[in-house]
Amino acid sequence: MTLEERLRAVGPERYHHRHPFHLLMHEGKLTRAQLQAWALNRYYYQSIIPVKDALILSRSEDPAFRLAWRKRIVDHDGDGVRPGGIEKWIQLAEATGLDRARVVSGAEVLPGVRYAVNAYLDLVSKRSFLEAVASSLTELFSRDLIVLRVDRLRAHYPWLAGGLAYFDARLTQAPEDARFALAYVNEHARTAAEQDLCVAALRAKCDILWAQLDAIYHAYVEPGWPPPGAFAA
Amino acid sequence: MTLEERLRAVGPERYHHRHPFHLLMHEGKLTRAQLQAWALNRYYYQSIIPVKDALILSRSEDPAFRLAWRKRIVDHDGDGVRPGGIEKWIQLAEATGLDRARVVSGAEVLPGVRYAVNAYLDLVSKRSFLEAVASSLTELFSRDLIVLRVDRLRAHYPWLAGGLAYFDARLTQAPEDARFALAYVNEHARTAAEQDLCVAALRAKCDILWAQLDAIYHAYVEPGWPPPGAFAA
Repeated sequence: MTLEERLRAVGPERYHHRHPFHLLMHEGKLTRAQLQAWALNRYYYQSIIPVKDALILSRSEDPAFRLAWRKRIVDHDGDGVRPGGIEKWIQLAEATGLDRARVVSGAEVLPGVRYAVNAYLDLVSKRSFLEAVASSLTELFSRDLIVLRVDRLRAHYPWLAGGLAYFDARLTQAPEDARFALAYVNEHARTAAEQDLCVAALRAKCDILWAQLDAIYHAYVEPGWPPPGAFAA
Repeated sequence: MTLEERLRAVGPERYHHRHPFHLLMHEGKLTRAQLQAWALNRYYYQSIIPVKDALILSRSEDPAFRLAWRKRIVDHDGDGVRPGGIEKWIQLAEATGLDRARVVSGAEVLPGVRYAVNAYLDLVSKRSFLEAVASSLTELFSRDLIVLRVDRLRAHYPWLAGGLAYFDARLTQAPEDARFALAYVNEHARTAAEQDLCVAALRAKCDILWAQLDAIYHAYVEPGWPPPGAFAA
Protein backbone atom coordinates (compact mmCIF):
# COMPACT_ATOMS: atom_id res chain seq x y z
CA MET A 1 0.00 0.00 0.00
CA THR A 2 1.12 3.55 -0.62
CA LEU A 3 1.37 5.87 2.36
CA GLU A 4 -1.82 7.61 1.27
CA GLU A 5 -3.65 4.30 1.09
CA ARG A 6 -2.41 3.38 4.55
CA LEU A 7 -3.52 6.73 5.95
CA ARG A 8 -6.95 6.49 4.32
CA ALA A 9 -7.38 2.96 5.70
CA VAL A 10 -7.21 4.31 9.26
CA GLY A 11 -10.62 5.95 8.87
CA PRO A 12 -12.84 2.90 8.43
CA GLU A 13 -11.01 1.23 11.30
CA ARG A 14 -10.69 3.98 13.90
CA TYR A 15 -12.50 7.20 13.03
CA HIS A 16 -15.27 8.19 15.43
CA HIS A 17 -18.08 7.96 12.86
CA ARG A 18 -18.33 4.38 14.19
CA HIS A 19 -18.64 5.40 17.83
CA PRO A 20 -21.85 4.25 19.54
CA PHE A 21 -22.63 7.81 20.64
CA HIS A 22 -22.61 8.97 17.01
CA LEU A 23 -24.69 5.96 15.99
CA LEU A 24 -27.33 6.97 18.53
CA MET A 25 -27.13 10.57 17.36
CA HIS A 26 -27.65 9.63 13.74
CA GLU A 27 -30.53 7.31 14.59
CA GLY A 28 -32.31 10.16 16.36
CA LYS A 29 -32.08 8.39 19.71
CA LEU A 30 -30.41 11.10 21.76
CA THR A 31 -32.34 13.34 24.09
CA ARG A 32 -31.94 17.08 24.17
CA ALA A 33 -29.96 16.75 27.43
CA GLN A 34 -27.59 14.28 25.79
CA LEU A 35 -27.05 16.64 22.86
CA GLN A 36 -26.39 19.40 25.38
CA ALA A 37 -23.78 17.25 27.12
CA TRP A 38 -22.16 16.55 23.75
CA ALA A 39 -22.15 20.21 22.66
CA LEU A 40 -20.85 21.43 26.02
CA ASN A 41 -18.08 18.86 26.24
CA ARG A 42 -17.05 19.04 22.61
CA TYR A 43 -16.75 22.80 23.00
CA TYR A 44 -13.59 22.18 24.98
CA TYR A 45 -12.12 20.38 21.95
CA GLN A 46 -13.21 23.16 19.61
CA SER A 47 -11.74 25.79 21.91
CA ILE A 48 -8.21 24.37 21.80
CA ILE A 49 -8.00 23.82 18.03
CA PRO A 50 -6.33 27.21 17.41
CA VAL A 51 -3.98 26.53 20.35
CA LYS A 52 -3.05 23.24 18.72
CA ASP A 53 -2.51 24.96 15.38
CA ALA A 54 -0.43 27.71 16.97
CA LEU A 55 1.79 25.02 18.53
CA ILE A 56 2.29 23.55 15.07
CA LEU A 57 2.96 27.03 13.63
CA SER A 58 5.50 27.63 16.38
CA ARG A 59 7.46 24.57 15.29
CA SER A 60 7.77 25.51 11.61
CA GLU A 61 10.69 27.52 10.29
CA ASP A 62 9.11 27.81 6.83
CA PRO A 63 7.13 31.02 6.22
CA ALA A 64 5.21 29.39 3.37
CA PHE A 65 4.12 26.52 5.60
CA ARG A 66 3.13 28.93 8.35
CA LEU A 67 1.15 31.07 5.91
CA ALA A 68 -0.80 28.05 4.69
CA TRP A 69 -1.35 26.63 8.18
CA ARG A 70 -2.37 30.01 9.63
CA LYS A 71 -5.65 29.72 7.72
CA ARG A 72 -6.76 27.13 10.27
CA ILE A 73 -6.46 29.61 13.11
CA VAL A 74 -8.52 32.14 11.16
CA ASP A 75 -11.12 29.47 10.43
CA HIS A 76 -11.60 28.83 14.14
CA ASP A 77 -10.97 32.23 15.71
CA GLY A 78 -12.59 34.30 12.95
CA ASP A 79 -11.23 37.52 11.52
CA GLY A 80 -12.81 39.97 13.92
CA VAL A 81 -15.73 40.55 11.57
CA ARG A 82 -17.00 37.14 10.52
CA PRO A 83 -17.35 34.59 13.31
CA GLY A 84 -15.00 31.59 13.37
CA GLY A 85 -15.67 27.98 14.19
CA ILE A 86 -15.51 28.46 17.96
CA GLU A 87 -18.25 31.09 17.87
CA LYS A 88 -20.32 28.89 15.57
CA TRP A 89 -19.93 25.98 17.96
CA ILE A 90 -21.20 28.17 20.79
CA GLN A 91 -24.22 28.92 18.59
CA LEU A 92 -24.76 25.19 18.19
CA ALA A 93 -24.61 24.75 21.97
CA GLU A 94 -27.07 27.62 22.37
CA ALA A 95 -29.38 25.92 19.89
CA THR A 96 -29.45 22.91 22.23
CA GLY A 97 -30.71 25.27 24.92
CA LEU A 98 -27.49 25.92 26.82
CA ASP A 99 -26.42 29.29 28.11
CA ARG A 100 -23.34 30.70 26.37
CA ALA A 101 -21.47 31.57 29.59
CA ARG A 102 -21.99 28.06 30.93
CA VAL A 103 -20.45 26.56 27.79
CA VAL A 104 -17.54 28.97 27.56
CA SER A 105 -16.60 28.58 31.24
CA GLY A 106 -15.66 24.93 30.70
CA ALA A 107 -16.48 24.30 34.36
CA GLU A 108 -18.61 21.24 33.67
CA VAL A 109 -16.45 19.56 31.06
CA LEU A 110 -15.87 15.89 31.84
CA PRO A 111 -12.35 15.22 33.10
CA GLY A 112 -12.05 12.39 30.58
CA VAL A 113 -12.81 14.79 27.73
CA ARG A 114 -10.33 17.30 29.08
CA TYR A 115 -7.56 14.71 29.35
CA ALA A 116 -8.16 13.44 25.81
CA VAL A 117 -8.14 16.95 24.34
CA ASN A 118 -5.00 17.84 26.27
CA ALA A 119 -3.38 14.68 24.90
CA TYR A 120 -3.76 16.28 21.47
CA LEU A 121 -1.76 19.31 22.62
CA ASP A 122 0.80 16.92 24.04
CA LEU A 123 1.00 15.05 20.74
CA VAL A 124 1.62 18.13 18.58
CA SER A 125 4.14 19.46 21.12
CA LYS A 126 6.21 16.36 21.77
CA ARG A 127 6.12 14.14 18.70
CA SER A 128 8.04 15.09 15.56
CA PHE A 129 6.76 17.95 13.42
CA LEU A 130 5.88 15.48 10.68
CA GLU A 131 3.74 13.46 13.10
CA ALA A 132 2.05 16.62 14.35
CA VAL A 133 1.02 17.43 10.77
CA ALA A 134 -0.03 13.83 10.08
CA SER A 135 -2.26 13.80 13.17
CA SER A 136 -4.44 16.45 11.51
CA LEU A 137 -5.39 14.03 8.76
CA THR A 138 -8.57 12.95 10.49
CA GLU A 139 -9.91 15.71 8.25
CA LEU A 140 -9.64 13.21 5.42
CA PHE A 141 -12.61 11.50 7.02
CA SER A 142 -14.61 14.39 8.42
CA ARG A 143 -16.52 15.53 5.34
CA ASP A 144 -18.50 12.30 4.97
CA LEU A 145 -19.34 12.32 8.67
CA ILE A 146 -20.45 15.95 8.58
CA VAL A 147 -22.68 15.40 5.53
CA LEU A 148 -24.35 12.49 7.28
CA ARG A 149 -24.57 14.28 10.61
CA VAL A 150 -26.17 17.44 9.24
CA ASP A 151 -28.72 15.37 7.34
CA ARG A 152 -29.63 13.36 10.44
CA LEU A 153 -29.60 16.31 12.81
CA ARG A 154 -32.04 18.16 10.54
CA ALA A 155 -34.25 15.09 10.30
CA HIS A 156 -34.30 13.99 13.92
CA TYR A 157 -33.71 17.19 15.87
CA PRO A 158 -35.28 19.96 13.75
CA TRP A 159 -35.08 22.39 16.69
CA LEU A 160 -31.28 22.33 16.18
CA ALA A 161 -31.47 23.63 12.60
CA GLY A 162 -30.52 27.20 13.54
CA GLY A 163 -27.24 26.02 15.07
CA LEU A 164 -25.64 24.16 12.19
CA ALA A 165 -23.50 26.90 10.63
CA TYR A 166 -20.35 25.34 12.08
CA PHE A 167 -20.78 22.24 9.97
CA ASP A 168 -21.55 24.16 6.77
CA ALA A 169 -18.19 25.92 7.03
CA ARG A 170 -16.30 22.71 7.79
CA LEU A 171 -17.62 21.09 4.61
CA THR A 172 -15.21 23.20 2.57
CA GLN A 173 -12.53 23.97 5.19
CA ALA A 174 -11.74 20.40 6.22
CA PRO A 175 -11.06 19.00 2.72
CA GLU A 176 -8.82 22.00 1.90
CA ASP A 177 -6.86 21.45 5.10
CA ALA A 178 -6.62 17.72 4.51
CA ARG A 179 -5.28 18.23 0.96
CA PHE A 180 -2.51 20.51 2.19
CA ALA A 181 -1.51 18.26 5.10
CA LEU A 182 -1.64 15.12 2.95
CA ALA A 183 0.64 16.71 0.34
CA TYR A 184 3.04 17.74 3.10
CA VAL A 185 3.12 14.27 4.63
CA ASN A 186 3.50 12.59 1.24
CA GLU A 187 6.46 14.81 0.44
CA HIS A 188 8.25 14.61 3.80
CA ALA A 189 7.62 11.05 5.04
CA ARG A 190 10.29 9.34 2.99
CA THR A 191 11.57 6.43 5.03
CA ALA A 192 9.44 3.47 6.04
CA ALA A 193 10.00 4.45 9.68
CA GLU A 194 8.71 7.98 9.04
CA GLN A 195 5.68 6.62 7.23
CA ASP A 196 4.93 4.24 10.11
CA LEU A 197 5.10 7.17 12.53
CA CYS A 198 2.66 9.16 10.41
CA VAL A 199 0.15 6.32 10.36
CA ALA A 200 0.58 5.89 14.13
CA ALA A 201 0.03 9.62 14.69
CA LEU A 202 -3.21 9.50 12.72
CA ARG A 203 -4.36 6.48 14.73
CA ALA A 204 -3.45 8.31 17.93
CA LYS A 205 -5.56 11.27 16.84
CA CYS A 206 -8.48 8.95 16.13
CA ASP A 207 -8.08 7.56 19.66
CA ILE A 208 -8.29 11.12 21.01
CA LEU A 209 -11.58 11.76 19.21
CA TRP A 210 -12.97 8.36 20.20
CA ALA A 211 -12.06 8.74 23.89
CA GLN A 212 -14.00 12.01 24.10
CA LEU A 213 -17.15 10.21 23.00
CA ASP A 214 -16.40 7.30 25.36
CA ALA A 215 -16.43 9.72 28.27
CA ILE A 216 -19.66 11.38 27.10
CA TYR A 217 -21.36 8.04 26.46
CA HIS A 218 -20.34 6.64 29.83
CA ALA A 219 -21.56 9.72 31.66
CA TYR A 220 -24.79 10.48 29.82
CA VAL A 221 -26.21 7.41 28.06
CA GLU A 222 -28.25 5.04 30.24
CA PRO A 223 -27.54 4.15 32.98
CA GLY A 224 -25.14 7.12 32.87
CA TRP A 225 -22.41 7.58 35.45
CA PRO A 226 -21.42 11.25 35.33
CA PRO A 227 -18.42 11.83 37.60
CA PRO A 228 -18.66 14.18 40.60
CA GLY A 229 -18.94 17.77 39.42
CA ALA A 230 -19.86 17.02 35.81
CA PHE A 231 -22.55 18.70 33.71
CA ALA A 232 -26.13 17.78 34.48
CA ALA A 233 -28.98 19.12 32.37
CA MET B 1 -13.08 24.45 58.40
CA THR B 2 -9.33 24.00 58.77
CA LEU B 3 -7.31 23.14 55.70
CA GLU B 4 -6.97 19.57 56.93
CA GLU B 5 -10.73 19.29 57.37
CA ARG B 6 -11.28 20.65 53.87
CA LEU B 7 -8.79 18.19 52.40
CA ARG B 8 -10.31 15.25 54.26
CA ALA B 9 -13.77 16.26 53.05
CA VAL B 10 -12.72 15.71 49.44
CA GLY B 11 -12.60 11.94 49.96
CA PRO B 12 -16.28 11.21 50.67
CA GLU B 13 -17.21 13.47 47.77
CA ARG B 14 -14.74 12.49 45.04
CA TYR B 15 -12.51 9.53 45.88
CA HIS B 16 -12.92 6.52 43.61
CA HIS B 17 -14.13 4.17 46.36
CA ARG B 18 -17.56 5.38 45.21
CA HIS B 19 -17.00 4.54 41.55
CA PRO B 20 -19.48 2.00 40.10
CA PHE B 21 -16.63 -0.21 38.91
CA HIS B 22 -15.34 -0.53 42.46
CA LEU B 23 -18.87 -1.13 43.76
CA LEU B 24 -19.22 -4.06 41.34
CA MET B 25 -15.78 -5.31 42.35
CA HIS B 26 -16.61 -5.24 46.02
CA GLU B 27 -19.96 -6.93 45.47
CA GLY B 28 -18.22 -9.81 43.69
CA LYS B 29 -19.95 -8.99 40.41
CA LEU B 30 -16.92 -8.69 38.16
CA THR B 31 -15.84 -11.48 35.85
CA ARG B 32 -12.28 -12.66 35.61
CA ALA B 33 -11.97 -10.88 32.24
CA GLN B 34 -13.13 -7.62 33.83
CA LEU B 35 -10.58 -7.98 36.61
CA GLN B 36 -7.96 -8.65 33.95
CA ALA B 37 -8.95 -5.46 32.14
CA TRP B 38 -8.70 -3.56 35.42
CA ALA B 39 -5.29 -5.02 36.36
CA LEU B 40 -3.86 -4.48 32.87
CA ASN B 41 -5.07 -0.91 32.58
CA ARG B 42 -4.26 0.10 36.13
CA TYR B 43 -0.73 -1.21 35.55
CA TYR B 44 -0.12 1.85 33.42
CA TYR B 45 -0.95 4.04 36.40
CA GLN B 46 1.30 2.00 38.71
CA SER B 47 4.12 2.15 36.20
CA ILE B 48 4.30 5.94 36.15
CA ILE B 49 4.13 6.51 39.92
CA PRO B 50 7.94 6.66 40.29
CA VAL B 51 8.11 8.94 37.24
CA LYS B 52 5.61 11.21 38.94
CA ASP B 53 7.60 11.14 42.16
CA ALA B 54 10.84 11.82 40.33
CA LEU B 55 9.21 14.89 38.74
CA ILE B 56 8.31 16.10 42.23
CA LEU B 57 11.84 15.33 43.48
CA SER B 58 13.26 17.27 40.55
CA ARG B 59 11.35 20.37 41.63
CA SER B 60 12.56 20.41 45.23
CA GLU B 61 15.68 22.29 46.27
CA ASP B 62 15.52 20.88 49.80
CA PRO B 63 17.66 17.76 50.40
CA ALA B 64 15.58 16.82 53.46
CA PHE B 65 12.37 16.94 51.43
CA ARG B 66 13.98 14.92 48.64
CA LEU B 67 15.26 12.32 51.11
CA ALA B 68 11.80 11.86 52.58
CA TRP B 69 10.05 11.80 49.21
CA ARG B 70 12.60 9.40 47.67
CA LYS B 71 11.12 6.63 49.81
CA ARG B 72 8.15 6.59 47.45
CA ILE B 73 10.34 5.71 44.48
CA VAL B 74 11.91 2.88 46.45
CA ASP B 75 8.46 1.65 47.47
CA HIS B 76 7.44 1.32 43.82
CA ASP B 77 10.68 0.42 42.06
CA GLY B 78 12.07 -1.79 44.85
CA ASP B 79 15.66 -1.84 46.04
CA GLY B 80 17.08 -4.38 43.63
CA VAL B 81 16.54 -7.18 46.15
CA ARG B 82 12.99 -6.86 47.43
CA PRO B 83 10.34 -6.25 44.79
CA GLY B 84 8.59 -2.89 44.70
CA GLY B 85 4.98 -2.02 44.05
CA ILE B 86 5.26 -2.24 40.27
CA GLU B 87 6.52 -5.81 40.42
CA LYS B 88 3.81 -6.68 42.94
CA TRP B 89 1.16 -5.20 40.65
CA ILE B 90 2.45 -7.40 37.83
CA GLN B 91 2.02 -10.36 40.19
CA LEU B 92 -1.57 -9.28 40.78
CA ALA B 93 -2.13 -9.12 37.02
CA GLU B 94 -0.58 -12.56 36.66
CA ALA B 95 -2.93 -13.84 39.36
CA THR B 96 -5.84 -12.75 37.14
CA GLY B 97 -4.39 -14.99 34.42
CA LEU B 98 -2.58 -12.42 32.31
CA ASP B 99 0.85 -12.91 30.82
CA ARG B 100 3.50 -10.61 32.30
CA ALA B 101 4.85 -9.42 28.95
CA ARG B 102 1.38 -8.48 27.78
CA VAL B 103 0.84 -6.32 30.87
CA VAL B 104 4.26 -4.67 30.81
CA SER B 105 4.05 -3.82 27.09
CA GLY B 106 1.16 -1.43 27.72
CA ALA B 107 0.02 -2.05 24.15
CA GLU B 108 -3.61 -2.69 25.10
CA VAL B 109 -4.07 0.08 27.65
CA LEU B 110 -7.22 2.09 26.98
CA PRO B 111 -6.45 5.52 25.51
CA GLY B 112 -8.74 7.07 28.13
CA VAL B 113 -6.70 5.51 30.93
CA ARG B 114 -3.47 6.65 29.32
CA TYR B 115 -4.71 10.25 28.99
CA ALA B 116 -5.88 10.37 32.61
CA VAL B 117 -2.59 8.99 33.91
CA ASN B 118 -0.60 11.39 31.76
CA ALA B 119 -2.71 14.23 33.15
CA TYR B 120 -1.20 13.36 36.54
CA LEU B 121 2.30 13.87 35.13
CA ASP B 122 1.09 17.13 33.65
CA LEU B 123 -0.32 18.22 37.01
CA VAL B 124 2.88 17.61 38.99
CA SER B 125 4.96 19.23 36.24
CA LYS B 126 2.95 22.36 35.59
CA ARG B 127 1.10 23.35 38.75
CA SER B 128 2.96 24.82 41.72
CA PHE B 129 5.17 22.57 43.82
CA LEU B 130 2.75 22.89 46.71
CA GLU B 131 -0.13 21.70 44.51
CA ALA B 132 1.97 18.80 43.25
CA VAL B 133 2.50 17.67 46.84
CA ALA B 134 -1.16 18.24 47.74
CA SER B 135 -2.30 16.10 44.81
CA SER B 136 -0.69 13.08 46.49
CA LEU B 137 -3.10 13.33 49.40
CA THR B 138 -5.50 10.80 47.92
CA GLU B 139 -3.41 8.55 50.12
CA LEU B 140 -5.39 9.96 53.04
CA PHE B 141 -8.28 7.90 51.70
CA SER B 142 -6.57 4.84 50.31
CA ARG B 143 -6.12 2.76 53.46
CA ASP B 144 -9.85 2.31 54.08
CA LEU B 145 -10.40 1.39 50.44
CA ILE B 146 -7.56 -1.13 50.48
CA VAL B 147 -8.78 -2.79 53.67
CA LEU B 148 -12.24 -3.17 52.16
CA ARG B 149 -10.91 -4.26 48.78
CA VAL B 150 -8.61 -6.97 50.11
CA ASP B 151 -11.43 -8.34 52.25
CA ARG B 152 -13.82 -8.45 49.30
CA LEU B 153 -11.28 -9.77 46.81
CA ARG B 154 -10.46 -12.64 49.16
CA ALA B 155 -14.15 -13.38 49.67
CA HIS B 156 -15.40 -13.11 46.10
CA TYR B 157 -12.37 -13.97 43.98
CA PRO B 158 -10.36 -16.45 46.08
CA TRP B 159 -8.27 -17.43 43.06
CA LEU B 160 -6.72 -13.92 43.30
CA ALA B 161 -5.39 -14.49 46.84
CA GLY B 162 -1.83 -15.15 45.69
CA GLY B 163 -1.63 -11.76 44.01
CA LEU B 164 -2.48 -9.39 46.85
CA ALA B 165 0.99 -8.54 48.17
CA TYR B 166 0.78 -5.10 46.56
CA PHE B 167 -2.07 -4.10 48.82
CA ASP B 168 -0.44 -5.46 51.98
CA ALA B 169 2.52 -3.16 51.44
CA ARG B 170 0.34 -0.15 50.70
CA LEU B 171 -1.47 -0.54 54.02
CA THR B 172 1.56 0.86 55.81
CA GLN B 173 3.21 2.87 53.01
CA ALA B 174 0.22 5.02 52.08
CA PRO B 175 -0.54 6.36 55.57
CA GLU B 176 3.16 7.19 56.12
CA ASP B 177 3.27 9.05 52.84
CA ALA B 178 0.02 10.86 53.57
CA ARG B 179 1.26 12.00 56.99
CA PHE B 180 4.38 13.54 55.49
CA ALA B 181 2.55 15.25 52.64
CA LEU B 182 -0.20 16.53 54.92
CA ALA B 183 2.34 18.05 57.30
CA TYR B 184 4.10 19.69 54.35
CA VAL B 185 0.88 21.14 52.97
CA ASN B 186 -0.27 22.32 56.39
CA GLU B 187 3.03 24.11 56.90
CA HIS B 188 3.34 25.69 53.44
CA ALA B 189 -0.21 26.56 52.40
CA ARG B 190 -0.54 29.78 54.36
CA THR B 191 -2.79 32.06 52.37
CA ALA B 192 -6.43 31.32 51.61
CA ALA B 193 -5.54 31.27 47.92
CA GLU B 194 -2.82 28.67 48.47
CA GLN B 195 -5.18 26.55 50.54
CA ASP B 196 -7.83 26.71 47.82
CA LEU B 197 -5.25 25.57 45.26
CA CYS B 198 -4.31 22.61 47.46
CA VAL B 199 -7.93 21.51 47.77
CA ALA B 200 -8.38 21.93 44.01
CA ALA B 201 -5.25 19.85 43.34
CA LEU B 202 -6.58 17.04 45.52
CA ARG B 203 -9.91 17.17 43.71
CA ALA B 204 -8.08 17.11 40.38
CA LYS B 205 -6.19 14.01 41.48
CA CYS B 206 -9.47 12.34 42.46
CA ASP B 207 -10.79 13.13 38.97
CA ILE B 208 -7.73 11.42 37.49
CA LEU B 209 -8.38 8.24 39.48
CA TRP B 210 -12.11 8.35 38.72
CA ALA B 211 -11.63 8.86 34.97
CA GLN B 212 -9.48 5.74 34.73
CA LEU B 213 -12.35 3.66 36.10
CA ASP B 214 -14.82 5.45 33.83
CA ALA B 215 -12.82 4.30 30.82
CA ILE B 216 -12.58 0.74 32.13
CA TYR B 217 -16.28 0.61 33.02
CA HIS B 218 -17.34 1.98 29.65
CA ALA B 219 -15.16 -0.49 27.77
CA TYR B 220 -15.68 -3.66 29.79
CA VAL B 221 -18.94 -3.59 31.75
CA GLU B 222 -22.08 -4.54 29.81
CA PRO B 223 -22.76 -3.66 27.05
CA GLY B 224 -19.07 -2.72 26.89
CA TRP B 225 -17.70 -0.54 24.13
CA PRO B 226 -13.95 -1.15 24.03
CA PRO B 227 -12.33 1.25 21.57
CA PRO B 228 -10.50 -0.08 18.49
CA GLY B 229 -7.28 -1.77 19.54
CA ALA B 230 -8.10 -2.15 23.22
CA PHE B 231 -7.54 -5.20 25.43
CA ALA B 232 -9.92 -8.10 24.92
CA ALA B 233 -9.72 -11.17 27.15
